[in-house]
Amino acid sequence: MSEPFAAVDVIIAKRNRLRLTDAQIDWVVDAYTRGVVADEQMSALAMAVLLNGMDRAEVVRWTQAMIATGERLSWSTLDRPTTDKHSTGGVGDKITLPLAPLVAACGAAVPQLSGRGLGHTGGTLDKLESIPGWRASLSNAEMLDVLRQAGAVICAAGSGLAPADRKLYALRDVTGTVESIPLIASSIMSKKIAEGTEALVLDVKVGSGAFMKDVESAHELARTMVALGTDAGVRTVALLTAMDTPLGLTVGNALEVRESVEVLEGGGPADVVDLTVTLAREMLLGAGLSHATDPAEVLRSGQAMDVWKRMIRAQGGDPDAALPVARHRQTVAAPATGTLTRLDALDVGVAAWRLGAGRARKEESVSFGAGIELHAKPGDTVVAGQPLLTLHTDDEDRFGRALESLATAVDVDVRHDRLPLVIDTVVA
Amino acid sequence: MSEPFAAVDVIIAKRNRLRLTDAQIDWVVDAYTRGVVADEQMSALAMAVLLNGMDRAEVVRWTQAMIATGERLSWSTLDRPTTDKHSTGGVGDKITLPLAPLVAACGAAVPQLSGRGLGHTGGTLDKLESIPGWRASLSNAEMLDVLRQAGAVICAAGSGLAPADRKLYALRDVTGTVESIPLIASSIMSKKIAEGTEALVLDVKVGSGAFMKDVESAHELARTMVALGTDAGVRTVALLTAMDTPLGLTVGNALEVRESVEVLEGGGPADVVDLTVTLAREMLLGAGLSHATDPAEVLRSGQAMDVWKRMIRAQGGDPDAALPVARHRQTVAAPATGTLTRLDALDVGVAAWRLGAGRARKEESVSFGAGIELHAKPGDTVVAGQPLLTLHTDDEDRFGRALESLATAVDVDVRHDRLPLVIDTVVA
Repeated sequence: MSEPFAAVDVIIAKRNRLRLTDAQIDWVVDAYTRGVVADEQMSALAMAVLLNGMDRAEVVRWTQAMIATGERLSWSTLDRPTTDKHSTGGVGDKITLPLAPLVAACGAAVPQLSGRGLGHTGGTLDKLESIPGWRASLSNAEMLDVLRQAGAVICAAGSGLAPADRKLYALRDVTGTVESIPLIASSIMSKKIAEGTEALVLDVKVGSGAFMKDVESAHELARTMVALGTDAGVRTVALLTAMDTPLGLTVGNALEVRESVEVLEGGGPADVVDLTVTLAREMLLGAGLSHATDPAEVLRSGQAMDVWKRMIRAQGGDPDAALPVARHRQTVAAPATGTLTRLDALDVGVAAWRLGAGRARKEESVSFGAGIELHAKPGDTVVAGQPLLTLHTDDEDRFGRALESLATAVDVDVRHDRLPLVIDTVVA
Repeated sequence: MSEPFAAVDVIIAKRNRLRLTDAQIDWVVDAYTRGVVADEQMSALAMAVLLNGMDRAEVVRWTQAMIATGERLSWSTLDRPTTDKHSTGGVGDKITLPLAPLVAACGAAVPQLSGRGLGHTGGTLDKLESIPGWRASLSNAEMLDVLRQAGAVICAAGSGLAPADRKLYALRDVTGTVESIPLIASSIMSKKIAEGTEALVLDVKVGSGAFMKDVESAHELARTMVALGTDAGVRTVALLTAMDTPLGLTVGNALEVRESVEVLEGGGPADVVDLTVTLAREMLLGAGLSHATDPAEVLRSGQAMDVWKRMIRAQGGDPDAALPVARHRQTVAAPATGTLTRLDALDVGVAAWRLGAGRARKEESVSFGAGIELHAKPGDTVVAGQPLLTLHTDDEDRFGRALESLATAVDVDVRHDRLPLVIDTVVA
């Protein structure tokens, strides 16, 4: 078969800071998926993109090309508007768990394709899998079924959706080419656009525990993704939210499910409740349902909990079953009396990961019970010697390395301005 | 087996413009050769090196690491000093063919490991293989034998010499990462240092038909290579020489052998004779034999021809056999009367390549008889309609594309300052 381009010419064009043409982008993404462009060629191109950039038009075309390598779902047979959320990932970020049933309880349909965690930020599917019986893999027909029954579905993206992204993401992970805003934005948005949602709220995390360490780069990522969604006809908005300290009081799979259930019961930590309600309002706004109901009220009423139970049961899970508990615990005490001014998200995330809550490689499994409970948050007053953190693990040998990560995690007494929970809202 | 580094961390360091440490360089080069660092990781690193550079210390270490992956030859049992030449490649550059026997006839030993051509610049081995019976592959023991018998040997680099470079060169060729001065310099010098020569003259070509199009980048490459050779204890000098028009009056394998034999017979084009004698003087200077003999005199005396015949015979070739001749010829006429001011090296090189003299892929074979004869050189007066070029090919269908490349190759009458044959000399 005759190919219209040679991979090396496309690589050299980007290496020499030229714009890639639409035809070059369409070809290179498709040919990589077909195996005509080799891994070593795509990784060289990805490095050239990371270092030399892509302009807005190139990113739009790259995203379209990735979508075109697979199927695009449609929910037009539903009698409700669809709306979804995507988070760029943070420590203790369990928001999807209460949020999806809450938005469904408010009248929208939430068709969420989610991922597994790699590194210190846990994945939504890993968390839900700590519920006995629950399964992440659904066919498209099963997904529609759950959506009809419960109003919300959270499941694994099938292999038919943007296969170019699946292949490219695995390649970037091992070739030092993850941290590129054009590649991050096109990866996220190709999957979300192909997923078929009509509206989308992006939660772009900023801070030590997030992918984006500073507000400026988070803004750039947010603007790029909002433009991609808007161009593709998805009503898209992005919120920049704080990730300098963990969200809520738990980090770890079953620990975070437990906290999510507390929120659905009308309790739970204030920051988790606030962010859940804030994102729910934005999702409903995108779905055209902003005047229908107040999500804070629906959360208090228990209706979101009803949806949660239907949703978990529809995917084989038992929402009332006991959650896995780790075999070993150890407490970390507050080092001084005063105001807790810092509890670093990255340090806590790495510690939870070392306790077994995350995986270093895709093939590894996670420990459902492992993780960390927080007994205070920045701004709280603590007394020297009081329990500050409880570490959970199935393997006692893991405490040592986890404690190493926590050695620099805590500041008491020194005044420090925290980032506000919602830093900014970016619209098209 | 436990590895001291993860490839992705080394890639990210260079991507983030950090210096690679000695330990990182040693490991990544060795681990790539062992297959522990994958092709897609090395190509991403090569692109990061191409775009972010390496400093002098990094290039020195990278070169040492490539040498350390294989064997290093030694000629200490010879009773003559060793000296060698390397050209970065140009159109019609057959200088090695008369030069190696000439320098041997002047009393030095020339242990030249050479390469095959890829693209429009022919390889020395391809040229020599047009001599019936001659073979390029010798064992180390055979190489020493030929060197003892003839004083000079030109043969293919065995797989034991800098295997890292062999693997990396093939990877760079398909990933758009060839044009990096640190990678070019370390590739050339790792092979030449491992070859074991005591002295080395580098012929760095500059101009349209060369890898380096401008004097500035050629200077940088020359300085880098001279530093690498000097650091490794090889007396190294680099000459920047003109490659805006082909060297001599022939381009193509057997055609260039014929012209080389003319030079060894005391004739041949002035530029080929001049460059051969100039490089011979530098090689003898490096070998400590500069006062022994005058290479111009040795060339005229026929002693170099005697060495040539011994050298060709020692590798199975018949120096008196008829050389292959292409089946078809076609003449290109001068377009106007006046002074020929330009005969572009790149255009002529691409035309010769299209006639069959070169290969596009390593697996292809070359046509020994194919190529181009020049009937005038820039500075000569030409008359409209006189034969300017004769094209040779085994396949008549190839004339069309070759003529396309030549359409822009010739200027007559317009004054144009040519680069002097030797532009500059760079010493440590």
